[in-house]
Amino acid sequence: MSRKVITISREFGSGGRSIGKMVAEKLGYAYYDQALVELIAKESGYSEDFVEQRGEDATSKSSFLFNLSRSGGTGGNYDGVYAISDKLYVLQHNIIKRIAAEGPCVIVGRCSDYILKDEESCLHAFIHADTDFKADRIVRLYGEREGSPEKRLEEKDKKRQVYYKNYTGRTWGLSMNYDLCLNSGKFGIEKCAEIIAELAKV
Amino acid sequence: MSRKVITISREFGSGGRSIGKMVAEKLGYAYYDQALVELIAKESGYSEDFVEQRGEDATSKSSFLFNLSRSGGTGGNYDGVYAISDKLYVLQHNIIKRIAAEGPCVIVGRCSDYILKDEESCLHAFIHADTDFKADRIVRLYGEREGSPEKRLEEKDKKRQVYYKNYTGRTWGLSMNYDLCLNSGKFGIEKCAEIIAELAKV
Repeated sequence: MSRKVITISREFGSGGRSIGKMVAEKLGYAYYDQALVELIAKESGYSEDFVEQRGEDATSKSSFLFNLSRSGGTGGNYDGVYAISDKLYVLQHNIIKRIAAEGPCVIVGRCSDYILKDEESCLHAFIHADTDFKADRIVRLYGEREGSPEKRLEEKDKKRQVYYKNYTGRTWGLSMNYDLCLNSGKFGIEKCAEIIAELAKV
Repeated sequence: MSRKVITISREFGSGGRSIGKMVAEKLGYAYYDQALVELIAKESGYSEDFVEQRGEDATSKSSFLFNLSRSGGTGGNYDGVYAISDKLYVLQHNIIKRIAAEGPCVIVGRCSDYILKDEESCLHAFIHADTDFKADRIVRLYGEREGSPEKRLEEKDKKRQVYYKNYTGRTWGLSMNYDLCLNSGKFGIEKCAEIIAELAKV
């Protein structure tokens, strides 16, 4: 059978977005990455920047509570901030379900693997790579920033991991949650896209 | 580059051994599964049955201690039993290092992914599948046994998970520890072997 929807989850810097785009081109599928952020922003009324930050790697409730208790904050802020994150997650969930039903597409990130886990015609992929490959890539793509590239990678993935656990109850990157997982640093971006497109037809 | 050594880790019933054998045939590599057990048995002096049981899914130290405390046993037994498991692990480690250095091969299980994690010319694969696929497979291959097939799957994998954690400190099945992970239930045994053999040449 041909898989109508492909979800790509990925470590920061592993090239998952580029791979997703290539797969969509190879198969002639719609591609949802920034387009998904735009949809969520439009339907929620929040800015794209805000949605991008909060829709995939929000701080965990527990660490947020920890920070609050250190700063002497109150539960009021907690409720307010998490009402927004939870609202965004529900909206994101509904939009992902809707676009998956509309037609063949590739969706990058945003817990789409979990949201579509029971859909028979989906293929769920996870992309990861070793630190050197990812560090080199983010410096080339996004330039130097505050903090070492290694630290940036670690922080970003930690947030994704916590966000994923928070909203799905599952372990981010555990192979059993995906149909295939690939090391893009070992095989290269193009080869990963080729394999995913091939397996989407099985 | 061509990967000289391929390690296959797998959930019980997922067909990882069959896949490993097919990959070895496709590439003309030596195949170590039962042959590895035989080597360990020969060099340790223990029987193949004993090595098979204790070299991959021994009870964890903590649960063993728990059982001992319930049964009123003493620390003496603990030391004796774990001296054997640890001795087998060290022997297994040395044999895996040696056969990997001897020439191209496929090695199934026994923490070989961890033992060879720093070898540049290796490819590490993990095979998993959904419960229905695995349950059907173990009943066809090994027949009905005491306990439901689902229970047998769960118990066997739990032991592998604990053994792996105990000797490697890592999480069994976490995609970042392997170069590729495949759902054999989704793609089929033959296709998984084909993909691994293909990626061994990248």
